[in-house]
Amino acid sequence: MFIGAQVSLYPMTSDFVEVIETGLEALSPYREHLRIETDDMSTLMVGAPEALIDAIRDLFAASARRPAHVTMHVTLSRGCPGEPDDPTCRCDTLIRSQDQPLDARKAAARDAVEAASVLGVGIDVQFSLYVLGQSHHMDEIYGCIDFLKSSGTFLRSKNFCTRLRGDAGAVFETIRQAFLRFGPAEGHVTIDLTASANSPSLR
Amino acid sequence: MFIGAQVSLYPMTSDFVEVIETGLEALSPYREHLRIETDDMSTLMVGAPEALIDAIRDLFAASARRPAHVTMHVTLSRGCPGEPDDPTCRCDTLIRSQDQPLDARKAAARDAVEAASVLGVGIDVQFSLYVLGQSHHMDEIYGCIDFLKSSGTFLRSKNFCTRLRGDAGAVFETIRQAFLRFGPAEGHVTIDLTASANSPSLR
Repeated sequence: MFIGAQVSLYPMTSDFVEVIETGLEALSPYREHLRIETDDMSTLMVGAPEALIDAIRDLFAASARRPAHVTMHVTLSRGCPGEPDDPTCRCDTLIRSQDQPLDARKAAARDAVEAASVLGVGIDVQFSLYVLGQSHHMDEIYGCIDFLKSSGTFLRSKNFCTRLRGDAGAVFETIRQAFLRFGPAEGHVTIDLTASANSPSLR
Repeated sequence: MFIGAQVSLYPMTSDFVEVIETGLEALSPYREHLRIETDDMSTLMVGAPEALIDAIRDLFAASARRPAHVTMHVTLSRGCPGEPDDPTCRCDTLIRSQDQPLDARKAAARDAVEAASVLGVGIDVQFSLYVLGQSHHMDEIYGCIDFLKSSGTFLRSKNFCTRLRGDAGAVFETIRQAFLRFGPAEGHVTIDLTASANSPSLR
């Protein structure tokens, strides 16, 4: 299994380099658990989903604590057949989910969001979940949408994606649960995610 | 068939509203051909891929002609089973591609990129193509990657995505061809795309 993300942070301010540096500082505790490589367009993070999603959450929350409007784009991927197996990506949640029926997975996902830590930073997210290499991919998608609607972070459905809103802790836990509990444990699943904070459109 | 995109423009400057307005002006010629709806996170555009990709290209090119670092995120989707049929999305390229073998589709895609208009704006893109609802989705992905490598806009492969670089005309034609020529004509295909221009990392 290979699990990781390409992450880009976009502060809408002329001081964008400083905001990005604040965000990157928040990654420090995770550097020993993740492979992190930055180029001019995005930062690759590879590792188990516990550290991976926490790191992405803290990167965005640290940037969102500053006053400027900031957004982030994340391409999450697990089980891509083109990537090599990586033992550091081992995930017990995925392994345990393997034989659970859809209803049990929805309930476990809701419990995890209820137990999420509170960061005190309100954010907006929209994302799409893609389950690949399966002829009945929409069953898992509709199961995931059921979970999202009862997650406490659901804002509304949009064309091609779902809007979430809430504390960064609950929102990123919702994302992690969607990513891990839906689609086959050994399958190829991806998420296309955009996060936003401090948008002037909402003032 | 339902074809469309969620598009977000991110200028890394405190004058970001002004840059976004410049970009939106570039959409004017396309408004009669597309359904365009903006909320606080993204702009939905629905319509045939000719006008759709041209509109996204011109939105980004207009913003990139200004000096500030600007990025854009696009979620492209065709054939999502959860969306209603929309006759304005009819696409002859998709219909013609239906019965063509992979090699013929790769050649047609290359020809289209060679014939692309030149906009005089250099841009960087990275994107992932997802072919859903198929058990052999990677065959189409690898076919698309072959096309990309010979497209003239290929920069390099990355984990989870492919980097392109070149004139906005050729780069967005490459995206349109990847979107239309690979994966079944009636199938569910999506693209997760990030574009960048005027990055200080490249100066």
